[in-house]
Amino acid sequence: MFFASDNSGPVPSQVLEAIARANEGHTSGYGSDALSLQVADRIRDLFEAPEAAVYLVPTGTAANSLALATLCPPYGTVFCSPVAHIHEDECNAPEFYSGGAKLTLVKGGDRMTPEALRAAIEGEGNRGVHGPKRGPVSITQLTEKGNYYTLEELRALTAVAREYGLPVHLDGARFANAAVKLGATPAEMSWKSGVDICVFGGTKNGLMGVEAVVIFDPARAEEFEYRRKRGAHLFSKHRYLAAQMDAYLEGDLWKELAEKANARCDQLMQGLKGLGLTVHNDTHANMIFFEMPRAAHRKVLEAGAVYYPSGDLEGDDAELLTGRLVCDWSLQPSDVSAFLDLLRDAA
Amino acid sequence: MFFASDNSGPVPSQVLEAIARANEGHTSGYGSDALSLQVADRIRDLFEAPEAAVYLVPTGTAANSLALATLCPPYGTVFCSPVAHIHEDECNAPEFYSGGAKLTLVKGGDRMTPEALRAAIEGEGNRGVHGPKRGPVSITQLTEKGNYYTLEELRALTAVAREYGLPVHLDGARFANAAVKLGATPAEMSWKSGVDICVFGGTKNGLMGVEAVVIFDPARAEEFEYRRKRGAHLFSKHRYLAAQMDAYLEGDLWKELAEKANARCDQLMQGLKGLGLTVHNDTHANMIFFEMPRAAHRKVLEAGAVYYPSGDLEGDDAELLTGRLVCDWSLQPSDVSAFLDLLRDAA
Amino acid sequence: MFFASDNSGPVPSQVLEAIARANEGHTSGYGSDALSLQVADRIRDLFEAPEAAVYLVPTGTAANSLALATLCPPYGTVFCSPVAHIHEDECNAPEFYSGGAKLTLVKGGDRMTPEALRAAIEGEGNRGVHGPKRGPVSITQLTEKGNYYTLEELRALTAVAREYGLPVHLDGARFANAAVKLGATPAEMSWKSGVDICVFGGTKNGLMGVEAVVIFDPARAEEFEYRRKRGAHLFSKHRYLAAQMDAYLEGDLWKELAEKANARCDQLMQGLKGLGLTVHNDTHANMIFFEMPRAAHRKVLEAGAVYYPSGDLEGDDAELLTGRLVCDWSLQPSDVSAFLDLLRDAA
Amino acid sequence: MFFASDNSGPVPSQVLEAIARANEGHTSGYGSDALSLQVADRIRDLFEAPEAAVYLVPTGTAANSLALATLCPPYGTVFCSPVAHIHEDECNAPEFYSGGAKLTLVKGGDRMTPEALRAAIEGEGNRGVHGPKRGPVSITQLTEKGNYYTLEELRALTAVAREYGLPVHLDGARFANAAVKLGATPAEMSWKSGVDICVFGGTKNGLMGVEAVVIFDPARAEEFEYRRKRGAHLFSKHRYLAAQMDAYLEGDLWKELAEKANARCDQLMQGLKGLGLTVHNDTHANMIFFEMPRAAHRKVLEAGAVYYPSGDLEGDDAELLTGRLVCDWSLQPSDVSAFLDLLRDAA
Repeated sequence: MFFASDNSGPVPSQVLEAIARANEGHTSGYGSDALSLQVADRIRDLFEAPEAAVYLVPTGTAANSLALATLCPPYGTVFCSPVAHIHEDECNAPEFYSGGAKLTLVKGGDRMTPEALRAAIEGEGNRGVHGPKRGPVSITQLTEKGNYYTLEELRALTAVAREYGLPVHLDGARFANAAVKLGATPAEMSWKSGVDICVFGGTKNGLMGVEAVVIFDPARAEEFEYRRKRGAHLFSKHRYLAAQMDAYLEGDLWKELAEKANARCDQLMQGLKGLGLTVHNDTHANMIFFEMPRAAHRKVLEAGAVYYPSGDLEGDDAELLTGRLVCDWSLQPSDVSAFLDLLRDAA
Repeated sequence: MFFASDNSGPVPSQVLEAIARANEGHTSGYGSDALSLQVADRIRDLFEAPEAAVYLVPTGTAANSLALATLCPPYGTVFCSPVAHIHEDECNAPEFYSGGAKLTLVKGGDRMTPEALRAAIEGEGNRGVHGPKRGPVSITQLTEKGNYYTLEELRALTAVAREYGLPVHLDGARFANAAVKLGATPAEMSWKSGVDICVFGGTKNGLMGVEAVVIFDPARAEEFEYRRKRGAHLFSKHRYLAAQMDAYLEGDLWKELAEKANARCDQLMQGLKGLGLTVHNDTHANMIFFEMPRAAHRKVLEAGAVYYPSGDLEGDDAELLTGRLVCDWSLQPSDVSAFLDLLRDAA
Repeated sequence: MFFASDNSGPVPSQVLEAIARANEGHTSGYGSDALSLQVADRIRDLFEAPEAAVYLVPTGTAANSLALATLCPPYGTVFCSPVAHIHEDECNAPEFYSGGAKLTLVKGGDRMTPEALRAAIEGEGNRGVHGPKRGPVSITQLTEKGNYYTLEELRALTAVAREYGLPVHLDGARFANAAVKLGATPAEMSWKSGVDICVFGGTKNGLMGVEAVVIFDPARAEEFEYRRKRGAHLFSKHRYLAAQMDAYLEGDLWKELAEKANARCDQLMQGLKGLGLTVHNDTHANMIFFEMPRAAHRKVLEAGAVYYPSGDLEGDDAELLTGRLVCDWSLQPSDVSAFLDLLRDAA
Repeated sequence: MFFASDNSGPVPSQVLEAIARANEGHTSGYGSDALSLQVADRIRDLFEAPEAAVYLVPTGTAANSLALATLCPPYGTVFCSPVAHIHEDECNAPEFYSGGAKLTLVKGGDRMTPEALRAAIEGEGNRGVHGPKRGPVSITQLTEKGNYYTLEELRALTAVAREYGLPVHLDGARFANAAVKLGATPAEMSWKSGVDICVFGGTKNGLMGVEAVVIFDPARAEEFEYRRKRGAHLFSKHRYLAAQMDAYLEGDLWKELAEKANARCDQLMQGLKGLGLTVHNDTHANMIFFEMPRAAHRKVLEAGAVYYPSGDLEGDDAELLTGRLVCDWSLQPSDVSAFLDLLRDAA
């Protein structure tokens, strides 16, 4: 009954097997080995982007920060949601990698609206050199509150960016969960929707630690490569990153894993609604937020469920706290049922 | 016959097994899981440093750059050899992580002498704020030219640093090879010799990508943690780094691997000398540099050996080129014999 | 009728005379000349802070950014108002000088409240290394909206900072105007109210370009000096900065200039109120914001008055726009009367 | 008898007068005033570069660092002499402004040779992303050892840079002294010789603190403007920088001042040679280095002359120390004679 995060479960056996297979003999390093080159090709195929530059890095923070640094000058600003991972959870990594750029928070919640984005863009960049130069728009798909953007919504945002000549970064730490939910192809959810650099996340969806950065304009590739090395994210034994990603791509494992996680989440959703509990995000994939009185949270957590409530467990018993439930691929239907049973008892 | 680098061979089976063992169920992330905590304890034990802060990062560049950033203000300078990895091979990563510090190159070759170090320190920091402030001394053990420092030599260098109140960083990408060669304990080769932050390398000695940073003064720990996260080097699924390091420590696997690599190198050395070839570094561990005419290099490389000669293969046949030979743990005695046979034929 | 900014008027003759006096013979450079040393002493006297370190820099942005960089690590965050000059008008200079720190905007307007500050501090620094480390609190006195904090209000803010162990920076670009208004001494408005580093502004109050940074804890002095030089703000011919500041201190010229500017602003305020116009900031010193229909603004500006209205001059005639009026020391009572006459005609 | 530096003398009366003239009424700020715009035009005329972007900054370090940051990515390296001011005397400012670039020292002395420059360029940029990317070549005219490059020598250097596609920065802190010495026009000594960004120094040649940065490719202008503001070097009361530069240009005052300084230096040279003393730099303009026994230096310095000897005054009396003598525009022939008299007595 572990719903605390999708970075907490094991990796599927295919990943370990791919690593074992890659662990043969000597190869050249730093991404010049055959497997690494082949994996880049497979990602270009998957994204229907034969010209794209593709790089593997070990963490989502690295993927996002390096992508943003490539798109934003140090005297620029990145437009993002106030709850964006790049703002809330990366300890100034985007500021660090960009050399001191700013993040301009687009008013509203986790899902930016075109109107709010436009207002934020208008609010910056009109003070000449006194304010920062307008930089990239960063969109998170799934958002940090578990919501997806539809393709139409994505395109509406990137259209605003395009209007101002601003490039678009997609934080796709949960790209797979969103794509599966939307029934969209990777191409549809990236360049066909106006994305310039897409992070194709693997870690939250079953890899040990690999994210692919897909840069659709190859003119930006050289800069990214230097920045990756300078950021200490170019692995000498690159084949072990490549092997994970290779397994992820093989037979569309990435979709299969996301489908499993999403299915558990659907099961959760039905159960929660069946219990009459309020759930915040109907446009969910593998993460939901629900409300329950503090006392009930306490009971459930003490019974062994693991997830994050929005406040302290000590306090007014009746106060409603929000619980965040994230499903990873490895959860079983029985895990969800057992959790729902606990909720039923507690509520 | 792969002698190009010690980052090119496979990892031992124990590492894969440890990863498979760690791949069970759900755990908490970002290094707060039991295995990660336990591994830090084991490293503290190994280094006889119960107060030390210990952190795992995936690359040597990350380990060095984060350590130096913790020791050097952005307006400071790091003292190192002109061929130091931090200067030659990390694409400005130390400059990046420190926020713009300088590297002052100590005159001479790969092994700094106390006299040259003192001269370099004297040459900096005497211009008030016009020059950089004197920062840490960075020592590489094994050096990039394959030489070790004896404990006495290490202590002589750190004594100079101490005299000027400067902290000491040890780049131990090949720490194990040096320790085994010297018959020194990790404590002897680090804090007992005056080192403040030691990088205990795992990647070149058989791991997929893990280095431990051992900070002997725990007052520096918090800063390091923030810098690691900000540098995007804090893995969410930290257990997969920990598992590798756990295998490395178990039964002193790190020593066993280094002994194997060093033994192959000794075998090479004897063979090369038997062939009458000049070898540069008698104080070697797992890497040697030898001289041979261009034509011979060409023949050997065309026959399938893999290593880096110091120049182009086209040119004056008789000109002596230097070849770099690096042994990793996975090489077999027969690999070395086969290589020596090729050399015999070519020379 | 120039009310656009207090950086637009001339400097008083005393400043030119002091520069001419300083322009004799040869002196040592970089702030080691007798005049520079003497000026630092005078500022220590003025602030009743015999231990303070005092540095002159040419711009307010330099003063603020260097001060903040001294107080905030690159992985930290600065707490400030959403309209703070450091956030809105310095093109990422604080981010640049700090090496990538963040600015956390305290909810509300130009004047932070202790409650909002506390909420902002609570909102940061509780995510371990995932968020930035809590850094300094930056207070602007006068605020960018022309309001002063009373000494009690200042102390209430710094008390919150102190409670969390956070240092306090005072952006005193209009320090003199506020001090004169409050009848407070420099010591009362800085260290006696809990300020750690105070910018004692000169430029907006009649100098060509000099700000003094007063650091009450001399342990921070060395770092500041290195950072100033590294930021290219250490003048070789430092005597010309010192001469300006010397004139500013002589006979409390700084107070006299601020009194003049404030008096013009009082005259404006009375006039505006007499005309029945709404003024935003009763707690003003030398800057006020007033409301008037667009058509009236257009008329007044076309008649030769210079100031910034809050919107385009084209549009609905009746819509109320806010005008910003800033008084510098050189304005004459007749300038204000003439302006008020224009307003009367237009309104 | 002040020969310690050319930043130690007074400014000519024309500069004070221009400032006084500019000190009338209200103007717009941040370089948008009429005088500032006019001065930029005059510099474009002087450099015969109607398209050039021209910016004023207060210090040479600011001029150099901003120019280099515009030319060098953070993952690049700048090629310069080992005694370049940007390396020796700016406390990591180029590293700071560039966001962590490296400086690659071209082997040799103060005057780079094309061969040494080529070797340095060849030595970098051939390790892919492991080393820094090749960045700009930075040339100092006059060098820090008081030598000029002839136009032919300049062109030979910039030809090497051009061959590798690298841009060229000219540190012209003593541009005027060199130009006068060579009888070269500003255009000849900059873009006509292959320079991309030229610093036209004013401070060492009689201004209080103004340098013009002349960027011949206007496509780089916007970036420079943002960087200048972000570096806190955009003066609000910009007219006081412009006024100084205006006086400097009026009637070619810049040439007149440089001629005076150079003439004093010629007088010194003749005198030193007449005394049989060794002088290092025959290709001098306003700075020379000469040798004399320690005892003689001591005597001369004790008698009131001011300059920097190359070592401590305590020590072996007979040891030859090098003295640096710098002439500023304000020295009189009688100052030089008096100094030479002292030398005669001492030697």
